[in-house]
Amino acid sequence: MARGKENAAVAVAVAAAPYVMSAALEATKMGIATMILVGDEAKMKNIAKDLDMDLSKFKIVDEPDPLLACKKAVSMVSSGEASSLMKGDIDTSTVMRAALDKETGLRAGKKLSHIAAFETPNYHKMLFATDCAINIAPDFDTHVDIIENAVAALQNLGIEKPKVALMAAKEVVDDKMPVTQEWGKMVELHKSGERMKGCIVDGPLALDNAVSEDACRIKGINSPVGADADILVAPTIEAGNILYKCLSFITKAKNGGVVLGAKRPIVLTSRADTAESKLISIALSVLF
Amino acid sequence: MARGKENAAVAVAVAAAPYVMSAALEATKMGIATMILVGDEAKMKNIAKDLDMDLSKFKIVDEPDPLLACKKAVSMVSSGEASSLMKGDIDTSTVMRAALDKETGLRAGKKLSHIAAFETPNYHKMLFATDCAINIAPDFDTHVDIIENAVAALQNLGIEKPKVALMAAKEVVDDKMPVTQEWGKMVELHKSGERMKGCIVDGPLALDNAVSEDACRIKGINSPVGADADILVAPTIEAGNILYKCLSFITKAKNGGVVLGAKRPIVLTSRADTAESKLISIALSVLF
Repeated sequence: MARGKENAAVAVAVAAAPYVMSAALEATKMGIATMILVGDEAKMKNIAKDLDMDLSKFKIVDEPDPLLACKKAVSMVSSGEASSLMKGDIDTSTVMRAALDKETGLRAGKKLSHIAAFETPNYHKMLFATDCAINIAPDFDTHVDIIENAVAALQNLGIEKPKVALMAAKEVVDDKMPVTQEWGKMVELHKSGERMKGCIVDGPLALDNAVSEDACRIKGINSPVGADADILVAPTIEAGNILYKCLSFITKAKNGGVVLGAKRPIVLTSRADTAESKLISIALSVLF
Repeated sequence: MARGKENAAVAVAVAAAPYVMSAALEATKMGIATMILVGDEAKMKNIAKDLDMDLSKFKIVDEPDPLLACKKAVSMVSSGEASSLMKGDIDTSTVMRAALDKETGLRAGKKLSHIAAFETPNYHKMLFATDCAINIAPDFDTHVDIIENAVAALQNLGIEKPKVALMAAKEVVDDKMPVTQEWGKMVELHKSGERMKGCIVDGPLALDNAVSEDACRIKGINSPVGADADILVAPTIEAGNILYKCLSFITKAKNGGVVLGAKRPIVLTSRADTAESKLISIALSVLF
């Protein structure tokens, strides 16, 4: 896994929970980022004692009130003191409300979207999928934002011209399949040069066309994205979520994910995520 | 892989093509079924010569006209002479038109649906997914047929009470997610005992809940289908197709698929399928 950027810092909103602090410690040990724990310091001290954890590795901001802890963590990101925001032991809606506050939040005028990253020996490079978690039935304009959010993030990883596959159930526009028609229009918009700059967009593509040379060869598909996609764009949250869960739980690919579209990435890992997945998510938030 | 049933026979519509005959030969060698090759016998003889193939392993029905070959193969299945139908070197729509002919075809009053089977070391048993290929945006009634088709097929495999997971992006009914609402109603219909008998249906479930004990434990999900699903039901063709392609091309699970809902299963393997996938599909058509 890549190391964090120099001086990267992650502000953790409501950090006083063992699973949050363990992930933060791991990220610190691996040199990914300075972790700023915002939350109830007394509680943190007790947890550190129980886990035999050295709190001096962290920067700590004492704020026992969870709502205020969220606000403080967000404002540290707004001010540039931290480079990304991480949800701690608090529900997603509370931390997102603070993050999206019109005056003090991290809004950047774009739709928020989730991007997941996967590493598996069965694909020749890191594979990203979006949106698997936030936008339920994205319309055309939301899909443009989702794609642009992902492309900007990958460019920050050093992938200059990410290859974007617009996923459907087949590789040609079909009047009976609205998804394929939307992707046809998306490719036209991309070709016009107005939106989705600095990337290569193609679709509709079935997933096999996006990732497999054999599939492209046998079906005679000659796509600039074929068999070499960086970003898989799902048509709906169901398709995206099933892809995400298939790669994580059946393919057993290493994975992480962050929320894009705000001024800085937001890490929304949950208790259920593996330690590895939490770490990868923190690293991505720093790198994007 | 399971052996075929005794006296099983597969009628291949328009068989005179090397890739079709190779798959048929393999199925014969493995004792899966008697393969009845319907098509241009002269052409078959030439191909057999080129490939050094022994035609005496097959039953051959000489019919050079492709349309008539489709009809003959279908009528052999109708009459019980063959137990399933396989598409040969002909486009899907042509063979399906013959299969669905109102007078001589294989209609059984149900919607047709596709079922795919997967075997991977990452899941503790065979995993089935439906519908990944035929119904584009199935409505409620079509989904009932899709589920019943799959359940009947698995019962024929000896799985007495298949566990059916209705897949969505989350595991609770959510007003903002129409898919979860449909699955909520589906579970109610199942509980009423009127439809989808002889199986256990639960949903909405995210894919991780359907296949992973860890996911169920951590999220506190107590579902009769949780972590042990036999059949994954996709909400749309996009979600199903992406799952199918992910399992086949990224997870690299062994896979096959057939069309259900007609009087007998129909094998629609394409040139692009691997030899193994074609074989599994033929075997499933015999076993279902």
